[in-house]
Amino acid sequence: MTSQVSPRPDDDVLAPTSPAAPAPTRWLDAEEQKAWRAWLYSTTLLQDRLERDLTHSAGVSSAYYEILVQLSEAPERRMRMSQLADRCLASRSRLSHAVSRLEERGWVAREVCVEDGRGQLAVLTDQGMTALEEAAPVHVSSVREHLFDQLSPAQVAAMRDIGETLLRHLDPR
Amino acid sequence: MTSQVSPRPDDDVLAPTSPAAPAPTRWLDAEEQKAWRAWLYSTTLLQDRLERDLTHSAGVSSAYYEILVQLSEAPERRMRMSQLADRCLASRSRLSHAVSRLEERGWVAREVCVEDGRGQLAVLTDQGMTALEEAAPVHVSSVREHLFDQLSPAQVAAMRDIGETLLRHLDPR
Repeated sequence: MTSQVSPRPDDDVLAPTSPAAPAPTRWLDAEEQKAWRAWLYSTTLLQDRLERDLTHSAGVSSAYYEILVQLSEAPERRMRMSQLADRCLASRSRLSHAVSRLEERGWVAREVCVEDGRGQLAVLTDQGMTALEEAAPVHVSSVREHLFDQLSPAQVAAMRDIGETLLRHLDPR
Repeated sequence: MTSQVSPRPDDDVLAPTSPAAPAPTRWLDAEEQKAWRAWLYSTTLLQDRLERDLTHSAGVSSAYYEILVQLSEAPERRMRMSQLADRCLASRSRLSHAVSRLEERGWVAREVCVEDGRGQLAVLTDQGMTALEEAAPVHVSSVREHLFDQLSPAQVAAMRDIGETLLRHLDPR
């Protein structure tokens, strides 16, 4: 959660305007504050809620769940560790740690990449696929209940539009 | 990050329809999938980006920053720990841990509540206020650059509308 310290517009009015001075801070106005806090608190609460439901139904965090989903959709249910990290928006070290935890459960295995003999592949095991198939319906119900069932079709379209706009800036790939 | 396992509509078609059977899973359709992933990835990347900028400028995580903001806006810059936890959407134990870390920096102090002699207040110190005032302009610039500067006024209005709609469901207070 992040928010803004109370705006101090007087500072900006009084700020020096010489070329050497840093640009005055563009504080959020009242409308932007409301939009910002609505986004901030709703995403935080929604993530918390989905995380709680997912942990309850699947026994794994959403970050671990995403690893299973990505592998389940990959050819032969396997993917290079580096690519998997990109897909899961995770650092290499965080992904490696997560994969180790999933290996302990028997849900994921590591293989050496046969193509070049270097690099590692993560593979979703049958046991991992079963765990994912058991968790998925509960997770989807949670996403429906707390997100889609609350929004009109126009709001869903706007949510997608906003998300895609932000993604073009944050992740141009 | 959470996503959905590949939809399996055949399962639903073949699912038994007796009253005792659980309701068939309402998998996300292609349009909902796109909206869901756009929301999921954009919020994850935006939070990561803001967190990185905030840590760089303020030396604290966004969760800790929010504590400073809430206290700075409270009367006499102090608030009951229980109320502060609610405002920061944090559990009591997580908040207590964070306040201890902020006490070590001299940014927050604890006081016994004089009104009832029980319960604790968290107080923003002058040093904490200074730290917040130094971090706030950088944080606001980051929010502008990665969020508001990317969106049209109509998108900002839609973002607020969606956020407030979800908040009425997730946090009816």
